[in-house]
Formats: sequence, C-alpha cells, structure tokens
Amino acid sequence: MISKVKNAMSTLVGGMMPHGHHQHHGSGNVHHQNCHQDGLPPRFPYGRPEFLDLTPELLQYSTEHASRPVLTLKRDSRLPWRTGYAETINAGKSMLNEDQASCELLYVKKLSNKKQRNSTLLDDNGDGTGIPLQYWGVFDGHAGSGCAIMASKLLHRLIRDRLGDIAHLLENPSVTPPICLAKNGSPYQLEVKKGANSTQDPEDPNAITDPSIRFHTEKTVSLESLIMGIIENAFKQMDELIEKEKTSFTISGGCCALAAIHLMGKLYVANAGDSRAIIIRNNEVIPMSNEFTPESERQRLQYLGLLRPELLGNEFTHLEFPRRIQHKELGKKMLFRDHTMNGWAYKTIIEDDLKFPLIYGEGKKARVMATIGVTRGLGDHDLKVYNSNIYIKPFLSCCPEPACYANAVRSQGDSVRHV
Amino acid sequence: MISKVKNAMSTLVGGMMPHGHHQHHGSGNVHHQNCHQDGLPPRFPYGRPEFLDLTPELLQYSTEHASRPVLTLKRDSRLPWRTGYAETINAGKSMLNEDQASCELLYVKKLSNKKQRNSTLLDDNGDGTGIPLQYWGVFDGHAGSGCAIMASKLLHRLIRDRLGDIAHLLENPSVTPPICLAKNGSPYQLEVKKGANSTQDPEDPNAITDPSIRFHTEKTVSLESLIMGIIENAFKQMDELIEKEKTSFTISGGCCALAAIHLMGKLYVANAGDSRAIIIRNNEVIPMSNEFTPESERQRLQYLGLLRPELLGNEFTHLEFPRRIQHKELGKKMLFRDHTMNGWAYKTIIEDDLKFPLIYGEGKKARVMATIGVTRGLGDHDLKVYNSNIYIKPFLSCCPEPACYANAVRSQGDSVRHV
Repeated sequence: MISKVKNAMSTLVGGMMPHGHHQHHGSGNVHHQNCHQDGLPPRFPYGRPEFLDLTPELLQYSTEHASRPVLTLKRDSRLPWRTGYAETINAGKSMLNEDQASCELLYVKKLSNKKQRNSTLLDDNGDGTGIPLQYWGVFDGHAGSGCAIMASKLLHRLIRDRLGDIAHLLENPSVTPPICLAKNGSPYQLEVKKGANSTQDPEDPNAITDPSIRFHTEKTVSLESLIMGIIENAFKQMDELIEKEKTSFTISGGCCALAAIHLMGKLYVANAGDSRAIIIRNNEVIPMSNEFTPESERQRLQYLGLLRPELLGNEFTHLEFPRRIQHKELGKKMLFRDHTMNGWAYKTIIEDDLKFPLIYGEGKKARVMATIGVTRGLGDHDLKVYNSNIYIKPFLSCCPEPACYANAVRSQGDSVRHV
Repeated sequence: MISKVKNAMSTLVGGMMPHGHHQHHGSGNVHHQNCHQDGLPPRFPYGRPEFLDLTPELLQYSTEHASRPVLTLKRDSRLPWRTGYAETINAGKSMLNEDQASCELLYVKKLSNKKQRNSTLLDDNGDGTGIPLQYWGVFDGHAGSGCAIMASKLLHRLIRDRLGDIAHLLENPSVTPPICLAKNGSPYQLEVKKGANSTQDPEDPNAITDPSIRFHTEKTVSLESLIMGIIENAFKQMDELIEKEKTSFTISGGCCALAAIHLMGKLYVANAGDSRAIIIRNNEVIPMSNEFTPESERQRLQYLGLLRPELLGNEFTHLEFPRRIQHKELGKKMLFRDHTMNGWAYKTIIEDDLKFPLIYGEGKKARVMATIGVTRGLGDHDLKVYNSNIYIKPFLSCCPEPACYANAVRSQGDSVRHV
C-alpha cells in the first residue's frame, strides 16, 4: 500500500504547491482545519534553504518523490565553519519538503533608537560592524511547510535583535550583568540603609533573618545565562509572531526548531522538538541537545492535564494505560501511570479511565492526544484533535532548554551535526 | 550568638521532650502552628533507631548538645550486609535528634485473605518464609521528630504489604506482568475480533490507523517497573497515613525519606528529599539518587504557582528575581526567570512583581515561600508560611523517583552509604 501511495504522490506533484497542504506527521494524524479558509496569501513562498541557491528548475526537481535527488551545496559555494549540508525529500509522507535550514553570519549591534528597540524585526544590514554571531538552524516541519519556512527566515534575526538590547553588556564581558536597569538602560543600584539591623533580637533563635539583609542579598547572573534567556525568549517571540501573522497570511503547520549559536567563543545549543545536535569527536558521538517527545515529556503533559482538566475536553484522561480499555473491563484492574510515577501500578478501572489516554503509544509511535509525536516546537496554533474542537497547542511548548558549551568545538577534526 | 544559643539549649535539654517542638529547618523558618493544639498523644514515643538498642540512660545521653556523643552499633550487634551506622545530634539546631533510620530484613508473602489485602499495615510475622527483602531507610526530619519516627517504623511495612499484592508475579519473574487483572487477581485478556479491518480504505493515506489494531497494541511493562510503582505508591500511602492519623495523634514536622531496597537480586533506590545515597567503589563516589531542592525543582514549583495562583495567596509571585524588589523600582527593568527558562532575561517591573518570589535564595539557603529548603518528603501537612494562612504542602511532593540497579553492588569491596 505504501508504494502505491508514493507513486500516486510523485505523479501528483507536477505543479508546485506553494503553501499549506494537509498531511500527517509520522503515523499520527495532524490536521489544520482552519488553514486556507480565508484565502490568505502565504507569508513566504515555498523554497529550499537559501544557501542551496536553487534555480526554479532545480527547485521543481527537488520535489521528485520517485527519484528523490539528494541536494547538497554547490561545488563553488562555501559556508562558514566548513558547514556541510545534504537533504532529500521524504518518501511520500508529504508532497513538498516540510523541513528547512539556515546558516547565517550576523552582527550584534547596539540598537540606535527607540524605534529599532521596539521593532520586532530589523532588516539585515551588512556593514560588518558589531559582534559576530554564527548561526545554524534546522526546522523539522509537519502538516505543511509554512511555519518552518518562516522560522528559518526570521528566528536568527529575532535572536540578533534581542542580543542588540544587551550589546553594551556583551562589549564588557568581564563585568557581571547588573540585576536592575534604569529606564535608559544604565545599571540601577539600591541604597543600602545602615543600622537597619538594630531592631533585631540577637537572642531569639526563631527570629526571621534580618529583612534588610535578605532584601539586599543578590544572586549573581552570568552573561551566559543572560544570552540563554535571550535565546529562550526569541523562540517565544517567534511563536507569537507566527500566531499574530496568521491573521494576515497563511502559515501552515508547525515545526521543531534547533538552533546552534556561536558567540564570543562559546557555543549555545537550543532545541525545541525532537531534532538532534551532535558532535563527532574521534568517531565518538557526543549529544549536544535533548529531545522533547511524548515519552520524555509525559510527566509535564500529564501534570497540565491534571491541573487543567478542561484542556482534555472530556475526551482524554491524563492517566497513562498500556492499551485502551473496553467498557466491559470496568471494575477490573489495569496497569497505569500518573504524572508522579516512573513505575507502573494496578488500579481498579472506573468510568473515567475509558477515555483515551493523553499520552499513548511507544517510541516513534508515541502521540499526544492521538495526534502529534513531538511536544515542543513553533506554530501549530490551530491544530486540533481530529473531528473535535480540542486544541493541542496548550500542551506544546515553544521553549528550548538551551545549553552553553565553553569548549565544545575544540579541534579542527570535530564536526557538529544536526539530524 | 550561635554558641550562646547552643549553650542555652544544652542546658534546657534536661527533661526529655518526647514529641513535637517548634524549631527551624536550616536557616528558614518552619512553624507548625496547629501542633499540640488538641493535646493529642504522640503516635510513637521519641527514640533512636531500634538497631542501636539504646538503654534509657544512653537515650538521654544522646541528646547532650554540649558533648555531642557519636552513637554507633554495639560491638556485638551485627546488621545484614555489613551495614554500618553512626549519628550525633546536630549542633543546637533542634533539641532532639529529628533524623531517623531503619534497617530491616522482611519477607514478601501472598496476602492470604481479603482482610489482609485491604489492611493498610500488617504486623511483622517472622516465620522466615516468603521472598526476602532487605530494606534500609533514612529520614531527615525537620520541625519536630514525629514524622521521621513514624515513617521509620512504617514505610517498610507498607512497601512489603503492597509487594504482597503481587507476590504471585514475583514468584514467576520470567513472566511479564499482565496488563489487566480480573477481580480475583488472575490475568484477564481481551478477545481480538477478526475481520475488523475490512471497513478500512487502503488507498486513503489520511485514514486513521485501524482502530482495532490501536486498541490491541499493548505496552510491555517489566516486573521492575511494577516494583518501582509499588515503592512510589507506598510513599504516597505513607504520607496519607500521616495525614489521617494526625486527627488522633500528634505527629510533628515532616521528613525527607530515602529508601534502598534489595529484592530478587536488584537494588531499588527511592528518594523524596535532599538526602543522598552513594556507592563507593575503588574510592570513587557513584551517586545513586537525585536531590529535590527549591533549586532543582524550581520549574515544577513555578509551573504549579502559575497554573494555580490561588495557592500563592496573593503574597508570592511564581517568577524568580535575583533579589527582592522595592516599590520605588516600579517601571525599571529587573532580571527574572519564569518556569520555562533556564537563562535569565530583563523584564519591566510591574506591581505584581513586588510580591515575594516563590523560590528565593541560593544553594543551601534556597527556600520555597521563604520557609522550607527541601521540596519533597513526608508530613508537613499543617505547615504554613509564617504569620499567614498559606499552606506549603501543595508545593511539596511525597513522590520519590525510584531507580532500579541491576548490578549495583557487585563486589565485596563496594559500600553503599546514606548521607
């Protein structure tokens, strides 16, 4: 059957489909019911990563499901850091390639005026001044290519612009970032009152620690933590921008996003989804990111379902069962896991357990709400459970958990790969 | 000042205080306002671990804060597995030793009748038949010794009794535990209907996967997962038992609980709190448990505070700030972290940010609601924020995250330690 579908598809893909189309992600069923309804134009036209520099003919050729050509960089084009790249279209799972990638050298600069600071997206201006930032991104799209294309074109700009807000701190990396900033961006320090301790009874062992001391105990925050926070918030901003622009454009589907950023001698890796960044050193594979899947995030999702049962729409239970339960099994005992459990235990089956489990299936087949096989990413704002009005987005997170590697890429023999 | 307090205390501890007394945990301020109010008797009298076998005189001597005697096993007493033990009273932090320990050899047996299966706690019956279970537990108490004493006397029995429910499965370890059990405890299997696939359209690539196949896809659950689930639920049952018996007894304070269980050749380590289990092998320290502290559990706690703001009682904010904010700083920018963030970012200070941060302080001084320095454990049901009606228990978890080690204790030279 699969080969029949493949053939049918490769025949179909004659005329390019420039935007959203309904397809499934893995063996789950992802449907964006609201796409196209308003006949909105696509935010960006369909294409392959800019650095591939494809002609229209090659772009058309890249969608051939029968021959599945492997696209690599042109012989004479060079990406920084000896970056390599290869892609091919999947074997009939979607008509167009829903995945994207970007590789950009950017420059972080002070934002010169208020208009710039408040803008969500500055144009690239390539005069080569500022702090250099090398950026790699991969975007594993599903249920359409719109989201991955938009993220591949804009996420790095958002990161650069937000880093611009703290350019004055980046220029003095030996100075710890100030805890508090005045409105003009300069450090603001509280005066420490003297003698505030005098009301304290030194003999009372139960006395609250001197409040003035507590008040002024400050945590030190490193510049690296600040950069990680900026990357995290740029992912969030990217997701909000997709939602906002969906009112004016068609931006189909959703995507996992994995970004690697080299800034001031350190490598930052931020992953929202189930892509992987690895380093290969002396033929040894070193994982540089964690994957977020229904299995790895089961407890977070179950906890949300427990605390916000209305999000389960009376169709799902936050408990996990090893298989679906039939009505005639009421009163029997079934293995289950709740959000606090790593192990399994037996429970007596009640009416509520007959609902479909929020997390169901194993390994590559594990799904949230029987629909999606990945739990973090961008987009998917209108993704609903098939044939229902239950939104899945509240269970999906757009937040990566970035890590900072000080000496990650040490020797010339190392290679960093995105999979 | 500290030495003055110490002296005052060691003078005070003349008459034994057999139950709850108000003291702080670390440098936080833990107050159990409802203790003693009803003049209830203690659930168990104060004492030191049974295996120390102290005379009343030695028990009294053990509370000397000035001399701080180190208690160890008697010369002629031997614990299984060459288990060692040493304790001394803390230096003036509490009048009695709030920590406890147990070391027990138990036997898992089929529960013979319904009365036994429904009972929460069976007596020990030492005829030596059944599956041997070696148990070690340490209980780091705070704000009173009642909880740690009760847990040290009962947790292992709860674990043994719940293992008794699956004794028939333990006796056949090569058989995978059945997913579903009939009411009499025997495995229950669904019939698989034939021909359910015939309504499926094989040409429709978007068709939902055959529901009858989905229905019957079963996850395999190992016996080890089942044992871990039983340990997890025994911790929960222990916590519920403490809450229930508080209506009839005084059970003061709370405690971290760390249990190590050797059963059928495997070692299970379950930790709810900030105690540590380590193995020392060839002078190398191998951690066998994770600690749960305000810092390691910040994101879980912030998430709960965000989803259930009523638990913060209008006094706390779920956001983390590096220090408290003063009113005159409104409108300025402050570093912060929310529940999705590992890094830090600046935000404009609003009125709501003036509340006290739910998680505050660093390292050993980190506190939940300015009160408690550990985020998992048993008891603490009536623990409130000082001078308020805000309960802290909803933020505390009684669940360990047990791990199973197949070849943990390999050689005779290894030693397992609780700290």
